[in-house]
Amino acid sequence: MAAIRPGALDPARPLAAVPPGDPGDPGLAESVARCLNDFFTARRGAADPTDPRFDGEVVARLERFTLLGGKRIRPTFAWWGWRAGGGPGSGPGAAAALRAVSALELIQSCALIQDDVMDGSPTRRGQPALHREYAEAHRSGSLRGSPRRYGESVAVLAGDLALAWADDMLDDALDGTDRRARVRAPWRAMRTEMIAGQFLDLHAQAQADVSEPTALRVARLKTAAYSVERPLEFGAALAGAGSGAVAALRSYGSDVGTAYQLRDDLLGVYGDPAATGKPIGDDIREGKPTLLLAIGLRRARERGDPAAADTLRGAVGDPGLTDADVRAVGALLDDLAARSAVEAHMRALLDSGLAHLAGAPFAATARDALTALAGHAVARLR
Amino acid sequence: MAAIRPGALDPARPLAAVPPGDPGDPGLAESVARCLNDFFTARRGAADPTDPRFDGEVVARLERFTLLGGKRIRPTFAWWGWRAGGGPGSGPGAAAALRAVSALELIQSCALIQDDVMDGSPTRRGQPALHREYAEAHRSGSLRGSPRRYGESVAVLAGDLALAWADDMLDDALDGTDRRARVRAPWRAMRTEMIAGQFLDLHAQAQADVSEPTALRVARLKTAAYSVERPLEFGAALAGAGSGAVAALRSYGSDVGTAYQLRDDLLGVYGDPAATGKPIGDDIREGKPTLLLAIGLRRARERGDPAAADTLRGAVGDPGLTDADVRAVGALLDDLAARSAVEAHMRALLDSGLAHLAGAPFAATARDALTALAGHAVARLR
Repeated sequence: MAAIRPGALDPARPLAAVPPGDPGDPGLAESVARCLNDFFTARRGAADPTDPRFDGEVVARLERFTLLGGKRIRPTFAWWGWRAGGGPGSGPGAAAALRAVSALELIQSCALIQDDVMDGSPTRRGQPALHREYAEAHRSGSLRGSPRRYGESVAVLAGDLALAWADDMLDDALDGTDRRARVRAPWRAMRTEMIAGQFLDLHAQAQADVSEPTALRVARLKTAAYSVERPLEFGAALAGAGSGAVAALRSYGSDVGTAYQLRDDLLGVYGDPAATGKPIGDDIREGKPTLLLAIGLRRARERGDPAAADTLRGAVGDPGLTDADVRAVGALLDDLAARSAVEAHMRALLDSGLAHLAGAPFAATARDALTALAGHAVARLR
Repeated sequence: MAAIRPGALDPARPLAAVPPGDPGDPGLAESVARCLNDFFTARRGAADPTDPRFDGEVVARLERFTLLGGKRIRPTFAWWGWRAGGGPGSGPGAAAALRAVSALELIQSCALIQDDVMDGSPTRRGQPALHREYAEAHRSGSLRGSPRRYGESVAVLAGDLALAWADDMLDDALDGTDRRARVRAPWRAMRTEMIAGQFLDLHAQAQADVSEPTALRVARLKTAAYSVERPLEFGAALAGAGSGAVAALRSYGSDVGTAYQLRDDLLGVYGDPAATGKPIGDDIREGKPTLLLAIGLRRARERGDPAAADTLRGAVGDPGLTDADVRAVGALLDDLAARSAVEAHMRALLDSGLAHLAGAPFAATARDALTALAGHAVARLR
């Protein structure tokens, strides 16, 4: 496994800074942000004649949300899918590929904005969630009706706009090339799987289904497929990669993506909110099916410890849990060896994911980057 | 103006049955439904491996919602845009155009499903709204959490799926042709304007802004542009129509589409729920900006009738209005001559719309169909 620079292991550091330098790639996250900025600059001009208020209150806020955003995980994996598939690191083809992979961030804006509405999350990246911003504008303007309902409705519309404009951005990026047909299958799968993953998550919460198969299924669909495997496939398809390279990338992506979700689950209970930007325990409060909880529940049963099982079952889906309660649940899951089991599972997925790179026909740069990205999935948790 | 068959004037009859027979067009609404059915048949197979539960609970319900649906207004205008633009009425080109115009129904499924969530509407086309269906499934399954929130969340996801799949259906329809670039501008405008129109509507309700300029602005954006003008432009662009034909269609569409919305506003107060499929007075209860109410408020002021103005202002946005209250408001608006003013405005728009057809280079079949469609906009209200 390639050496990972110490700075790259800091979970608070943008993931896009992790890949080892690629000639012509001064900073992937910055490049993605620039592509998104260019797209919005062009589209804001087009939206203004539609209605200045729409442009100012929906388009501008969506733009800010998207530009401030996150770790650019999906464009990063898509870019390295492109490079692993033989796409060049610079030149006009690379510039078009960069614009195409940046469109994945618009799908993600839709997913995050609407997830926050559905989960009733007050914050995102340490800032008020978009539906809260709109509700606050309603409240401070003393407008008519329910601020909550107004905020949620306008946020859903901002998400719709992001989803529709993702297709427009892809279309612009691939205009005049023969690449549209190539990326059709992964592009479609990505959008549908984003929606299906969110549905399964809601459904499992409503069913109070915190079983291991369900937890793994949601992790596979919502994170591994939508966020890692399909972006890799998308990038490779864009480059016209052969079926062997695509298969290796997808297998790697499925394993690494699942590991990435397991790490996220662990950070959600044991992480430092100052570093992760989100409060601990939300998955438990919302009753989300995580492997960590599912294993904990099974271990409590196996150990014949009804008190532990009752504590866990009582915590799942309880919106009133305090941080101290969450830490107590975390300690119990540690005691039940659920945490160590998830860490072991994560390591096994990482090893399996890296094994798929071994025989694959990738250039050294791409292989090193993919290795580093996989390492990031388990950073600070080994 | 072409003769309109008596049956075509029945507002309960599908609009798609209105156009005079086009050789090779046995029934536009049926053809659209068949295209949608074919698309869903292919996609359900693709969704099932994603997750059988998603396929059964989201895809299948979206399919039923879309197939049962409505008057197919947008595909109808798009089809006649295609014919007016010189597209053939039968043959492989026509079949592809029919598939492309049918994709507009998926954008509309998204709009309707999410509108019902935002407005809290309990029914759609006389059936429970989709979010109510999901809430009921949650309730009858004794699931965890709030049935209302679950129902709204899953309905929003079903709407997202419709929006994403609209692009896929268009992409399938135009695969292997050079038409994608041609329809880019109207396709993009249609999706953005659907979202912008819904935002403006929510915003005007929150601002309690029932002014004439706002009412006309929402009607122009939400109905005239999204439902009529852009579909016509889309169909004409698909056929490769010249700029003169496109300009005539757009001007016709803007006028007729606005008239169509004014008719809808009138039906919302004076219509027969058994024929329209929706309760009377919802626009008033929700505080939607309609020209009817805006003119009524102005007339009450002009007449120096503070009691009438108070009655109207008190009714706007009052969810507790009974049907008898709505009928009393309707009588008051009649008395204030607001109803007759809207009818006159509608007739003027119709005349202006038809005048745009006069010099346009359309075949007689297309001109007759567009004339009949315009006539339908004011049917039973003259």
